[in-house]
Amino acid sequence: MRQQLFFSPTMREIPQGADIPSHQLMLRAGLVRQTASGIYSYLPLGKKVLRNVEEIIREEMDNAGAQELLMPAIQPTELWEESGRLNNYGPELMRLKDRHERDFVLGPTHEEVITSLVRDNVNSYKKLPMNLYQIQTKYRDERRPRFGVLRSREFMMKDAYSFDTDKEGLDKNYQAMFNAYTNIFSRCCLDFRAVKADAGAIGGKGGTHEFMVLSDVGEDTIAYSGASDYAANVEIADLPDMYEKAEAPKETMEDIHTPNMRTIEELTQGLQINSDRLLKSLLFLVDDKPILVVCRGDHEINEIKVSNAFEAEDVRLAEDKEVFDIMGVETGFIGPVNVPEEVTVVCDFAVKSVVSGVCGANKKDKHYQNVHPERDFSVTSYGDFRLVQEGDPSPDGKGTIQFAKGIEVGHVFKLGTKYSEALGAVYLDENGRSQPMIMGCYGIGVSRTIAAIVEQHHDDNGLIWPKSIAPFDVHVLVLNTKQEEQVNLGESLYESLKKAGYNVLIDDRKERAGVKFKDADLLGLPIRVTCGKRAAEGIVEVKTRRDGNMEEVHVDELDSYLTTLYQQIQ
Amino acid sequence: MRQQLFFSPTMREIPQGADIPSHQLMLRAGLVRQTASGIYSYLPLGKKVLRNVEEIIREEMDNAGAQELLMPAIQPTELWEESGRLNNYGPELMRLKDRHERDFVLGPTHEEVITSLVRDNVNSYKKLPMNLYQIQTKYRDERRPRFGVLRSREFMMKDAYSFDTDKEGLDKNYQAMFNAYTNIFSRCCLDFRAVKADAGAIGGKGGTHEFMVLSDVGEDTIAYSGASDYAANVEIADLPDMYEKAEAPKETMEDIHTPNMRTIEELTQGLQINSDRLLKSLLFLVDDKPILVVCRGDHEINEIKVSNAFEAEDVRLAEDKEVFDIMGVETGFIGPVNVPEEVTVVCDFAVKSVVSGVCGANKKDKHYQNVHPERDFSVTSYGDFRLVQEGDPSPDGKGTIQFAKGIEVGHVFKLGTKYSEALGAVYLDENGRSQPMIMGCYGIGVSRTIAAIVEQHHDDNGLIWPKSIAPFDVHVLVLNTKQEEQVNLGESLYESLKKAGYNVLIDDRKERAGVKFKDADLLGLPIRVTCGKRAAEGIVEVKTRRDGNMEEVHVDELDSYLTTLYQQIQ
Repeated sequence: MRQQLFFSPTMREIPQGADIPSHQLMLRAGLVRQTASGIYSYLPLGKKVLRNVEEIIREEMDNAGAQELLMPAIQPTELWEESGRLNNYGPELMRLKDRHERDFVLGPTHEEVITSLVRDNVNSYKKLPMNLYQIQTKYRDERRPRFGVLRSREFMMKDAYSFDTDKEGLDKNYQAMFNAYTNIFSRCCLDFRAVKADAGAIGGKGGTHEFMVLSDVGEDTIAYSGASDYAANVEIADLPDMYEKAEAPKETMEDIHTPNMRTIEELTQGLQINSDRLLKSLLFLVDDKPILVVCRGDHEINEIKVSNAFEAEDVRLAEDKEVFDIMGVETGFIGPVNVPEEVTVVCDFAVKSVVSGVCGANKKDKHYQNVHPERDFSVTSYGDFRLVQEGDPSPDGKGTIQFAKGIEVGHVFKLGTKYSEALGAVYLDENGRSQPMIMGCYGIGVSRTIAAIVEQHHDDNGLIWPKSIAPFDVHVLVLNTKQEEQVNLGESLYESLKKAGYNVLIDDRKERAGVKFKDADLLGLPIRVTCGKRAAEGIVEVKTRRDGNMEEVHVDELDSYLTTLYQQIQ
Repeated sequence: MRQQLFFSPTMREIPQGADIPSHQLMLRAGLVRQTASGIYSYLPLGKKVLRNVEEIIREEMDNAGAQELLMPAIQPTELWEESGRLNNYGPELMRLKDRHERDFVLGPTHEEVITSLVRDNVNSYKKLPMNLYQIQTKYRDERRPRFGVLRSREFMMKDAYSFDTDKEGLDKNYQAMFNAYTNIFSRCCLDFRAVKADAGAIGGKGGTHEFMVLSDVGEDTIAYSGASDYAANVEIADLPDMYEKAEAPKETMEDIHTPNMRTIEELTQGLQINSDRLLKSLLFLVDDKPILVVCRGDHEINEIKVSNAFEAEDVRLAEDKEVFDIMGVETGFIGPVNVPEEVTVVCDFAVKSVVSGVCGANKKDKHYQNVHPERDFSVTSYGDFRLVQEGDPSPDGKGTIQFAKGIEVGHVFKLGTKYSEALGAVYLDENGRSQPMIMGCYGIGVSRTIAAIVEQHHDDNGLIWPKSIAPFDVHVLVLNTKQEEQVNLGESLYESLKKAGYNVLIDDRKERAGVKFKDADLLGLPIRVTCGKRAAEGIVEVKTRRDGNMEEVHVDELDSYLTTLYQQIQ
């Protein structure tokens, strides 16, 4: 491709509103342009990168035995009513009416369409297992689109859906996708972790992993062990029961006057004690039943763990008014002692370790001190209810937990029969009995994978493309287009390198050398070949973008030099 | 690919509501399934075909120097206001609001987006010419979606837009696209014609051609010469002035009483004369001016030609009330004699040839007879105002016009400056002056190209894929999966043929031979290799789908046999 007429507008300055490196560089290098908030056009350079990532995904999906299809973006609302997701999905779901006033949605995901498609066309165990995928445009009306293609409203996604007759089949498909994703993100040269995650709104109580690219601009926090490959979303990371029961204090429990001490901070200040002696109580409504969850004052209760512990459909923190109605006192003074009969008290494991505790007394302006679990209040059960913290032991027993920020680029879910039951996707088993299909779903955010690659592969001067992703392999620079030797050498290299199988971009623009060098660094193609002052001698300068290494090479040696170099670089 | 687990549900019966072969066969062979009216999912077989067509398009577009990008489907309504098309487009334009109540459209085409993109990023003649294309999903809310993917509401399109500094550049880009389209449709093995067409709503007064695949199910009529490559949309086909002026009759004009004779049929019946002696008059409002257009009774007036002749923005037939108000008589009795002063009379060339004509007398229940143009009424001008008919001479002077039905699969348009002026896409020329870019646009209906291929390549038993499009090259049939020799031979051929570079589908299903043969014909892969009774001897049957030719071949010869055969077939 000739740069003179190539549609790749570059920018020197950091564009307004672009807060993170990938957003800045994708704009500056001319990969994308915003058409509307959260809606982007991919310019030729960006489109090439998109295709490269898509091809890696396609190859690995095909190798894993998945079959590619293509479903429509427009989906009939009825399907979303059948699955029961229409109202749960909220304003992220973009809706429209056709000319006959029929309701449609723009698909943010395709569980409904694929399940109805398979329902209508597969009815025997003989056609299962099956794993179907597409690379297709998705729509999510983000409240606050930002970070360029990292959080946009129209974006490219690879979504796959597996259909099995039994749990073992699902496990196998899940593992195949897990492995395929590992290959895909490895080939994209990403430093990532597959982290255990919560199933969330997409449904399914089975396993789920998120593939997280480690990056400071990530919006998720990963808890991982420095000493093993353990990694989990911080919201889901398990904690073992590692606490010894403390001995009961000699003193009996007594109440203390604590006006204006409602929060952990106010209590530790006011009573001059460490927060790990406080018992923090939160009242949840778990499928409408009041559950008082108690943890140590230096810990945070994790709602997802509460939900999972009770296998609940619906968990929420009680509102202030509800707390007052149930506990008879305002939120700041509730505690596990003398709770009303209908309230169940459960404690995080760490509560066992509290020595001579302090908790709300269920009386206005009062706390208890010298509180001891099981002596002073009954505990229905202990469990893992708190958020993990840095320094906690890793649940696999190896090392301690550290935190990192991550960009979610993929996820794999065991859906089970949620959608097949809702939409009636059944098959006849070997005995002629009708059974719901067992499903898994597997997504990759293609557009945001590109942003993640940029986050991990750039420097102050611009992009540094891994060769598997690079829009071109080699950048030939003709430094001075008025010098015939440089032009001739550049043009002949352009042709010979293309013939040798490289994708080549030649900078044939009538620009100053400084502009060309700057743009070349910004575009970040793996290898730069500069035809400059020594062109007449047949000598070019070869620069590796990643390490900045430069060598003068005679054109006669260039072929073998590049072959070796190209193999070596990332 | 193994057919046992391949998601390619076939049907024996013709599906309800599928009226044309391509719709029937694409459903029956499991290429597509309808998700909603005019909205389709492409199953794996259909997706492979789609990709093959897309790759042919991509290669030819790249070879023609076009650059691929990707624009969003969601477009801000403001852009359509800027271009002035928002209200012209009508209910085919799908609209939606985002969560902030901002208005968007789902793009049926991308002139607005690309023009604003180029406007914002290109400002110098140095970066032109440029031709940008995408292969992307489009939306048109057809009033009556039908014929499967031939007229659907969500479909795949290749659209390209060229930007030039002068008309010669546009001509060059136009010709490059014309040639690329010729290559593309030839490689798709389509029998097509590039026909002259009307620019219509997309705008632009320059040249435009439609690429029409000849097919009885086509919705357009092509006028073409049997003796040359002349072809035009019937709505636009020119007619030369080929008529001699008739001599004036000796009789003077006189009126006749013609109650209940308003139509051509009623007049030819009532007066017992041929329709070529009648003068048919229609009153048009051309940019609000009344124009009476007269043609011969055996001809039809073509509104597009009227519009073009007057270079009008807006042309419409006057309504009955308007006719009465202007002409003072009802529609059935209007004519060119004694018209009110404000009415201009123009005649089709053929009117010159009318001998002793009959026309409406502008009086209730009256016509004139013995009418002679220029003697009895004044003619402002003669022109080409009528629809072409079969048997008319071809405008290139070679042969006569014949009609054929066509499916429009592509079109090329010279847009000129319509969009660049509306949206302000200007560049600075060599003298630093601001000029609007000169644009062309070039579309291919990718989904409907597939339907067109099926229309031209099938027989009663099913699809007959050209090898350039076929989802697989070779279909290996294991006739009896209980016979170990057949299974072993089939499996070894499956592997060796893949190694030899063929895309192979193996029918490894536990089905009867009859089912397998029927499905193989239905799927229509170019070459079928059947492992049947003579498998033990190493003999397979090779069938060419297109001509039905069958040969028994020993596996040792198979490689060279297939190499030759594959080269020979279409």
